[in-house]
Amino acid sequence: MSTAIHTSSRVTFETSPEQYHHWKLSCDGPVATLSMDVQEDAGLSPDYKLKLNSYDLGVDIELADAVQRLRFEHPEVRTVVVTSLKERIFCAGANIFMLRGSSHAWKVNFCKFTNETRLAIEDASENSGIKFLAALNGICAGGGYELALACDEIILVDDGNSAVSLPETPLLAVLPGTGGLTRVVDKRKVRRDLADFFGTVAEGIRGKRAVEWRLVDAVYPTSQFKEQVAKRAQELTAQSDRPSGAKGITLGPLNPEVTDDALRYSVVSVDIDRDRRVATLTVRGPEGDLPSTPEAIQAVGDQFWPLRAFRELDDALLRLRANESLIGTVAVKTEGDAAKVLEADEVLLAHKDDWLVREITHFIKRTLKRMDLTSRSFFALIEPGSCFAGTLFELALACDRQYMLDDPDQPNTIALSAMNGRHGAEKDTAGGPLPMSNGLTRLQTRFLGEPDRVDEVLGAAEAFDAQQAGDAGLVSFAPDELDWDDEVRLAIESRAAFSPDALTGMEANLRFAGPETMETKIFGRLTAWQNWIFQRPNAVGEKGALTAYGSQSRPEFDFNRV
Amino acid sequence: MSTAIHTSSRVTFETSPEQYHHWKLSCDGPVATLSMDVQEDAGLSPDYKLKLNSYDLGVDIELADAVQRLRFEHPEVRTVVVTSLKERIFCAGANIFMLRGSSHAWKVNFCKFTNETRLAIEDASENSGIKFLAALNGICAGGGYELALACDEIILVDDGNSAVSLPETPLLAVLPGTGGLTRVVDKRKVRRDLADFFGTVAEGIRGKRAVEWRLVDAVYPTSQFKEQVAKRAQELTAQSDRPSGAKGITLGPLNPEVTDDALRYSVVSVDIDRDRRVATLTVRGPEGDLPSTPEAIQAVGDQFWPLRAFRELDDALLRLRANESLIGTVAVKTEGDAAKVLEADEVLLAHKDDWLVREITHFIKRTLKRMDLTSRSFFALIEPGSCFAGTLFELALACDRQYMLDDPDQPNTIALSAMNGRHGAEKDTAGGPLPMSNGLTRLQTRFLGEPDRVDEVLGAAEAFDAQQAGDAGLVSFAPDELDWDDEVRLAIESRAAFSPDALTGMEANLRFAGPETMETKIFGRLTAWQNWIFQRPNAVGEKGALTAYGSQSRPEFDFNRV
Repeated sequence: MSTAIHTSSRVTFETSPEQYHHWKLSCDGPVATLSMDVQEDAGLSPDYKLKLNSYDLGVDIELADAVQRLRFEHPEVRTVVVTSLKERIFCAGANIFMLRGSSHAWKVNFCKFTNETRLAIEDASENSGIKFLAALNGICAGGGYELALACDEIILVDDGNSAVSLPETPLLAVLPGTGGLTRVVDKRKVRRDLADFFGTVAEGIRGKRAVEWRLVDAVYPTSQFKEQVAKRAQELTAQSDRPSGAKGITLGPLNPEVTDDALRYSVVSVDIDRDRRVATLTVRGPEGDLPSTPEAIQAVGDQFWPLRAFRELDDALLRLRANESLIGTVAVKTEGDAAKVLEADEVLLAHKDDWLVREITHFIKRTLKRMDLTSRSFFALIEPGSCFAGTLFELALACDRQYMLDDPDQPNTIALSAMNGRHGAEKDTAGGPLPMSNGLTRLQTRFLGEPDRVDEVLGAAEAFDAQQAGDAGLVSFAPDELDWDDEVRLAIESRAAFSPDALTGMEANLRFAGPETMETKIFGRLTAWQNWIFQRPNAVGEKGALTAYGSQSRPEFDFNRV
Repeated sequence: MSTAIHTSSRVTFETSPEQYHHWKLSCDGPVATLSMDVQEDAGLSPDYKLKLNSYDLGVDIELADAVQRLRFEHPEVRTVVVTSLKERIFCAGANIFMLRGSSHAWKVNFCKFTNETRLAIEDASENSGIKFLAALNGICAGGGYELALACDEIILVDDGNSAVSLPETPLLAVLPGTGGLTRVVDKRKVRRDLADFFGTVAEGIRGKRAVEWRLVDAVYPTSQFKEQVAKRAQELTAQSDRPSGAKGITLGPLNPEVTDDALRYSVVSVDIDRDRRVATLTVRGPEGDLPSTPEAIQAVGDQFWPLRAFRELDDALLRLRANESLIGTVAVKTEGDAAKVLEADEVLLAHKDDWLVREITHFIKRTLKRMDLTSRSFFALIEPGSCFAGTLFELALACDRQYMLDDPDQPNTIALSAMNGRHGAEKDTAGGPLPMSNGLTRLQTRFLGEPDRVDEVLGAAEAFDAQQAGDAGLVSFAPDELDWDDEVRLAIESRAAFSPDALTGMEANLRFAGPETMETKIFGRLTAWQNWIFQRPNAVGEKGALTAYGSQSRPEFDFNRV
């Protein structure tokens, strides 16, 4: 079987409810219902059929889109019921034939995106007042249960048959790698011995035992199931702080111009140099008048610069990941007026309690997290004409290194805003508007060894020139105009010559200093082990369990423990 | 080249200073010096030469032994200077030709043991009042620098040439996987952009820059180096709470009887059933009179039951890991008088401030951590005649599951002691005498979802019979005498049929619920990524960098980013 189902085609990540193949989104006042109804023949590749509500990346792209639109387009929604339209089947998990036919890189990228989508559900719950209720109307296996685990509560039908299960280990010799193992013991706090048993019984656990073991929150017989789900959905709306009477904005298509070596959006562009295996990602700062009130922001909607810029950036990162695996290094640049970026930051900060501004800020945060988790080397190049200020300086901080040109003849500065730190009154507490997945801001993570520096640099009244930025520890290197070209060229060239795998591993370890959270645990511990297993012959070899699944042959294992 | 250098020979982990090939241990009052002087031709295999103070597992076994003996045999030592007897060379790191010729499993096990040894150094510093001062008298590369990172302080000679470096990524396409990446950003809190640069320059960083970047604590010119090291070593002794005038005990050889299918120590035995790929590990409780004062414990020395039992257990675990990779499941049993185990616990708790009792308790803790980190499935079988009480019940808690026979005709109980929990006065604080590497006790980790249970079960006046233990959540399953044989047999048989890789990944994720620490990060995030890379063709393939190292050919990489 081919191991390169997807790698030659280009994936796009934009969709909208009218285009969904696999989900139905319906809103009824404060309760929305998101129903899975996967079309067997509408997978991203014709090589497999998406039976039993199993999913591929295309299904998950729609789910991610739905969650995003619920946040921006439906401020009235307070509870989302996640369920299925298929009789006695909730979801059978990731499609095994898709996984079997995919390259290692595709598997890894697929899991990363699905992990990010599940974390987006949890982010909406934690930060946007949208509670998710998984209504499991039938079998719920593997990735299906991992989706349920991302919801706030899980109700399972008690029909003597429907169970929740994580059959990956016994059936496929892989892990429930989309957060499943982590969420079972860390989020739902299932006892580890029971979790161990659960993770090895392919048929799963059902009924009262599932409740007693904390695997689900409640079970109801078929006759009461719908009614109890509806009741609980209503109850959950009471926990929400979403506004009454607000009107959503529409997230329109991004319409990038895509050529063989460039992606051009309205303010973001990506230029690809295939010979050097380098992309240049440029973000243009805002121009013209910025809206300064919630009403004015609402009026411009998805054209408001912070939202537009980060939606484009998010899409660009996803396309780079999926479609440009040979591009190992990304030079990150900005262009524009730093003062305007800081003005946009002030608007976001002044109206942080407005529902839409809150959504925009959390979306910026999630996009920056996506960058932290992208397995490419990012180098910020800070040159005259750039606008690495406030929120856009977070882009530089998300990079593995920052190079800043020190040329007295060409003014070149960076600046911070409260978007880089904590809100005024909340000094000395962790976090800020744009925390990383470790719960700290990028400045806090950067200055873990010199925590006083965080307040020092945030308190600076002026912008930093290259020397000041170097002294303050805000940039890695500040070469002068004589050295700049060579130093930057050499840094990028030598990076491109290293093993991409070693760089991925190195970056995954250096980027997340400080505390670990459930989120970093999923991407650190669980994902790294899953990636290991995705290469093991016992899973993916000729006689491995993933390869053998669904065929006549039984898997044959090398039983040596590593 | 063979990829099975070591796998056919049996490794032993016992040694003593008289037998060292690679280290010299000398004690001068409160300052000991541990000098690396690796003998090229004394590697574990004749297939490579240990040039430039590079190391293999045999070198690290001696290091682990030295650290252990400093704790038990030299209570007068308060500072250990870790240095080298080779001119202008501290240590070149793990031997690359050894790594290149080793199987995947050997690499993984080698890294696990070296990680545990470095953590044992940090444990001695944190808990036993022994400070470690790395005196880098010359080049210090890769694993050499990772050893230095495990020390409390690092002094580097400033001779215009000597540098610290992590050349794994640029030269070998692997990671500094013995804690290097984690300790650089999490322990020494080096800024991540500087750490990124450092991790890609094979020649490393030297002199003042190494101090400014926090990579070392001080540099001194050759003329002052020895004197400054001696001065700082003396200063560090002031931080110690080790006793004056105490006399150490001698750790004698364990002398197990080793046959093809058994390991028999004085109170620990391992019986191997190769057909079923199962080992039975049995620990016998104490018999006869136990010493009850520090003086009496000192007098019996290494024959004191808790020390003897856990030294034997530690050695058994290490041998299982290295020599019995086909044994995937371990049935854990105990035999003896629970009251005597609890009596031993009382002695340990009553004299917890005695230096030797402190060492014994920390050693028990480290052995249990070794078990947590052993990639085998452990099932505790709690049967009549067993003595799963207090410290020995930690063995059961360290298992993936606990099966307890419920037979009214045969009394069978388990019991807790303060060794399972927090010391009396310190209730409601995390930890206890035997924390896991996540900083919590095994009971706290087990009851993450029901934290009140911890105090409930610790407060119980009586032992628990099978039903009570099941109700209290202390065992997974309590089958009656009719079901016992079938249920246990089926559990073990089905376990043995699963992919060992999937089980390893599953266990590594389920065993460490709750907070992450630097220690769990090293074994979770860093190790899992390293294990992934240790399978990547860019490292270990025919044209991979590890394979090509030292040969005429240059590595050829697949530059696709995963």
